[in-house]
Amino acid sequence: MPRVAIFMGSLSDEAKMRPCASVLDALGVTYRFTVTSAHRTPARTEQLVDELEAAGCQVFICGAGMAAHLAGAVAARTMKPVIGVPINASALNGLDALLATVQMPPGFPVATVALDGAGAKNAAWLAAQILALQDPELAGRLTAAREKFREEVATAAATLESPA
Amino acid sequence: MPRVAIFMGSLSDEAKMRPCASVLDALGVTYRFTVTSAHRTPARTEQLVDELEAAGCQVFICGAGMAAHLAGAVAARTMKPVIGVPINASALNGLDALLATVQMPPGFPVATVALDGAGAKNAAWLAAQILALQDPELAGRLTAAREKFREEVATAAATLESPA
Amino acid sequence: MPRVAIFMGSLSDEAKMRPCASVLDALGVTYRFTVTSAHRTPARTEQLVDELEAAGCQVFICGAGMAAHLAGAVAARTMKPVIGVPINASALNGLDALLATVQMPPGFPVATVALDGAGAKNAAWLAAQILALQDPELAGRLTAAREKFREEVATAAATLESPA
Amino acid sequence: MPRVAIFMGSLSDEAKMRPCASVLDALGVTYRFTVTSAHRTPARTEQLVDELEAAGCQVFICGAGMAAHLAGAVAARTMKPVIGVPINASALNGLDALLATVQMPPGFPVATVALDGAGAKNAAWLAAQILALQDPELAGRLTAAREKFREEVATAAATLESPA
Amino acid sequence: MPRVAIFMGSLSDEAKMRPCASVLDALGVTYRFTVTSAHRTPARTEQLVDELEAAGCQVFICGAGMAAHLAGAVAARTMKPVIGVPINASALNGLDALLATVQMPPGFPVATVALDGAGAKNAAWLAAQILALQDPELAGRLTAAREKFREEVATAAATLESPA
Amino acid sequence: MPRVAIFMGSLSDEAKMRPCASVLDALGVTYRFTVTSAHRTPARTEQLVDELEAAGCQVFICGAGMAAHLAGAVAARTMKPVIGVPINASALNGLDALLATVQMPPGFPVATVALDGAGAKNAAWLAAQILALQDPELAGRLTAAREKFREEVATAAATLESPA
Amino acid sequence: MPRVAIFMGSLSDEAKMRPCASVLDALGVTYRFTVTSAHRTPARTEQLVDELEAAGCQVFICGAGMAAHLAGAVAARTMKPVIGVPINASALNGLDALLATVQMPPGFPVATVALDGAGAKNAAWLAAQILALQDPELAGRLTAAREKFREEVATAAATLESPA
Amino acid sequence: MPRVAIFMGSLSDEAKMRPCASVLDALGVTYRFTVTSAHRTPARTEQLVDELEAAGCQVFICGAGMAAHLAGAVAARTMKPVIGVPINASALNGLDALLATVQMPPGFPVATVALDGAGAKNAAWLAAQILALQDPELAGRLTAAREKFREEVATAAATLESPA
Repeated sequence: MPRVAIFMGSLSDEAKMRPCASVLDALGVTYRFTVTSAHRTPARTEQLVDELEAAGCQVFICGAGMAAHLAGAVAARTMKPVIGVPINASALNGLDALLATVQMPPGFPVATVALDGAGAKNAAWLAAQILALQDPELAGRLTAAREKFREEVATAAATLESPA
Repeated sequence: MPRVAIFMGSLSDEAKMRPCASVLDALGVTYRFTVTSAHRTPARTEQLVDELEAAGCQVFICGAGMAAHLAGAVAARTMKPVIGVPINASALNGLDALLATVQMPPGFPVATVALDGAGAKNAAWLAAQILALQDPELAGRLTAAREKFREEVATAAATLESPA
Repeated sequence: MPRVAIFMGSLSDEAKMRPCASVLDALGVTYRFTVTSAHRTPARTEQLVDELEAAGCQVFICGAGMAAHLAGAVAARTMKPVIGVPINASALNGLDALLATVQMPPGFPVATVALDGAGAKNAAWLAAQILALQDPELAGRLTAAREKFREEVATAAATLESPA
Repeated sequence: MPRVAIFMGSLSDEAKMRPCASVLDALGVTYRFTVTSAHRTPARTEQLVDELEAAGCQVFICGAGMAAHLAGAVAARTMKPVIGVPINASALNGLDALLATVQMPPGFPVATVALDGAGAKNAAWLAAQILALQDPELAGRLTAAREKFREEVATAAATLESPA
Repeated sequence: MPRVAIFMGSLSDEAKMRPCASVLDALGVTYRFTVTSAHRTPARTEQLVDELEAAGCQVFICGAGMAAHLAGAVAARTMKPVIGVPINASALNGLDALLATVQMPPGFPVATVALDGAGAKNAAWLAAQILALQDPELAGRLTAAREKFREEVATAAATLESPA
Repeated sequence: MPRVAIFMGSLSDEAKMRPCASVLDALGVTYRFTVTSAHRTPARTEQLVDELEAAGCQVFICGAGMAAHLAGAVAARTMKPVIGVPINASALNGLDALLATVQMPPGFPVATVALDGAGAKNAAWLAAQILALQDPELAGRLTAAREKFREEVATAAATLESPA
Repeated sequence: MPRVAIFMGSLSDEAKMRPCASVLDALGVTYRFTVTSAHRTPARTEQLVDELEAAGCQVFICGAGMAAHLAGAVAARTMKPVIGVPINASALNGLDALLATVQMPPGFPVATVALDGAGAKNAAWLAAQILALQDPELAGRLTAAREKFREEVATAAATLESPA
Repeated sequence: MPRVAIFMGSLSDEAKMRPCASVLDALGVTYRFTVTSAHRTPARTEQLVDELEAAGCQVFICGAGMAAHLAGAVAARTMKPVIGVPINASALNGLDALLATVQMPPGFPVATVALDGAGAKNAAWLAAQILALQDPELAGRLTAAREKFREEVATAAATLESPA
């Protein structure tokens, strides 16, 4: 049973969204990773949301580029938290996807994270933080992961400051 | 029977979309002018599109601000031409609505016009140009309207250049 | 016991953040509404986060303008979900606050919502959606609220389409 | 007899505009694909518009970069619908072409689509949607093409979700 | 006989373009100040350019907003220097007019100056600098005007630094 | 005796400014092509302007990137027309150079052309147009060059439309 | 003897730069507050820099709008630290002044602070921080001022949280 | 004893920040070059600031990308001057880092320099200019370095203008 859904609007977004799945794997959070489009397959999108929600999915993550409507369409269908990852997929450097994702009208929030891979990872971290409110073991794994971040900085500093 | 649908995402867009209706009135084109939201009322939006299309509506005009998804949602439902009017409704000067409207993925075009009132008028002109392909009388009224534009410039120039 | 913290970086943000509190009031969600600054009072910010978290607070909402660091500073202190509301507080139309809030590095997500009042409301909706995962009554109130949104559109449409 | 004209402002736009022709080919819509410039050859542009319109051309598609005036110049010459494709052809990522294309004054709409190749394709889809209002067979081919889009998403999802 | 033409695309630009005329008046440079539109009156624009050029006009100044094509259209018609004044006439703060004016393709330069009133004045200064290459008296008036600028700064400084 | 000065702020701008010299060569206009910096060598810049002006130079072309002050510094020193070419030389895609060049205060215009190579060429065309006001032979060469532009479009169209 | 120079490019910048002087007054730092322009009075600017530097001035603060060159011109004349305050003085919301101030080439830094009044204050704080490196009493006043910022937040929070 | 601290938010910023160290090396200014993060290691950042300040460090330089909070966090901890280098580290071309660095609230200035390598160098120049206020020998080395800049321009010009 997936606790998180990861949707992307196009197969071409796979490389940028894959880090989202990797972070969830590392944190031991189950998910479904699939393609569905707000415009090409609106019925499939609604059906997926309904099925996954019925199966107990608690957070929806949506990555999309350009006029990125996928997260908004999902947010209109469910009352579970929806996280949007803007994908840079045109000449406009992702500013189109960022604004189309974040500027949602009152009542239909999309929790927007950073562009591209950094955002894909953060979508996973945010989903895990939300789930951890009810899951002390997951909270523990998050605490351990943060500790690792700290150690990585210390290691990086040691490398940087060591004599060549 | 309305030949054109004018949708806006929020009642607060009425003032900016009203000029669209006025231009259609002046050109003798029937329309339906109503509110429907991609997020608050997705079912109503789909139903309106289906009903209007069944009733013979040929062009859909959608005005929306911020993460302006309305035109895209309509474009995903119908194969009739969809015209999008980006509305400046946040601190970002309408850049959000412009990019969310125009940057549609292949297969689901939204014919985007200028921001706000100028765009609302142009949505009407564009809808009329599309209908005029099958309606020689409307084409004649469009030709006359263009002539009037020319006369207005001449009058303006005369005023500007006349001795004070 | 507040379930949500609403922080703002400056007293001048109060008007834009007040709608956040109003939505939580309407949904029956308790909160603490206060001022703290990432730069002027970093110690107070950390202490507030620790105290509130210890007292059971589950979601942190941070509104800030310009180089909006408050949400990021809170996200570095807690593992609870942090929601950021970018406030338009300079000549740059809030683009500064938006980018400083959303572009967080991996591991420290800030769930970013729309600029200003619309975002302040959505921060509340998002917080409630997160809490509702463990609170069926709150989930019920959210469902009812969505129904109201739908009715408002229907009423607006009726008004707009009624003969003058 | 071409039903659609595809103009580009410079031979260097050919690669980005070619997908427009390919979509029309696939839909069985005849077109003329040529170069003409608003600034270098204004007389040629006007003459082409007049000739093609006289020959029954119903929609004009114009791709241009930088201070993209071509679509506007055509829109000033004809009352047939004009579709503009902004081309990214400078350091400014196509923002120059997008704004120069979409921000037309009242009475002279340019139906603007997305930047570059995605927009070139959508210009073709939009032109076909306009022509299909009078051509039930073309409408049928459009319906079939949409169905294909849906199937592509399903196939992509199957690939993505199949065990490695 | 006007030595400079000042065109504006719309009567609504008059207030922003009037300072252009005032500077030319102060420098003793004759001009024609009129309205003509690239889109509404392309024939009038071409005819005005031809007539004025035949009458000895040496510099063309064009003020326009939004998808500001007027200067480009004039530059395509004459080989005299063309100066463009971008006018802020939409929600986009004049960025649309600036990019549509300055990003001209090779061979058809538009000498672009600042937005709005500051640019309107500078269009006049630039036109006078161009004419002064052949007119030593005008060059002398320009030198005197610069001296005045220097005095104004000195006076302003004296005011600012004088005890209250 | 150079009739035009071409300054660039850094040797690294040479490749982007070389097309400026090539156009002047083709038009038979003499020039001086050199490096000088508003910040690194303000005295050299002023001295070059004074010397060249004394030697009969009539137009100054300045190419510079980032906080592009060179054209403004030259415009503050001479009353001859100054043309600015914004160079894309940072992560910001030349928007920095464009705004730093075009937004000059009243009395000190910089005739700004397009970014990079297209602008470098147009700076040469504009300088030639200014000089041609007093040089009928140069005006003739400009007319011939325009004719060539027209022919190039015709050739390009023929190539594009010829059967493969 | 002024320890800090506050220059502004135009008398119209006075209101936005006055807070800079007020902060220095409160910190007991002497300054000269005057107008000088990079373009209108380059000689005055150089002379002021030389005189003030000779008189012991240690930090230069420059406020300017549009193509804000003043700080850069001062930075080219002195080796003392130069602080730039971008002023919003055109339709472009100060983005022009910000980029023209901050994007200086290597060797000629301008320490850029925020736009408008917030930046004017911060220029004073930064100048005082620089001077305090050699002035323990000033350092003490800065410490006290920071304490006051903390108290203000506490007071604001008390007000906000007190029962109405 | 380091007189300057160079912090970067991530090891991936090393290449862009290395020129900062090189300029300080050339000027004979001691420094510490290390990694610390506002979000991953806030405690390490505070401790480093305290230790370095206690050891006599006088200027802090912070390079960071995306929602660049590092310089602000340091500025909140010390009253020594803090210099921020915005790093282009996302699809947004460094605009995110620039705005997150420069738009600091009153009382907590960050002396912001140009993006990326040019800014990294200028951070070093600015730090040296600040230190030189109390160090005449360093001031002498700065004067010599400026002289070298001048010579480089002269050499570049000679190369450019020499016959091929």
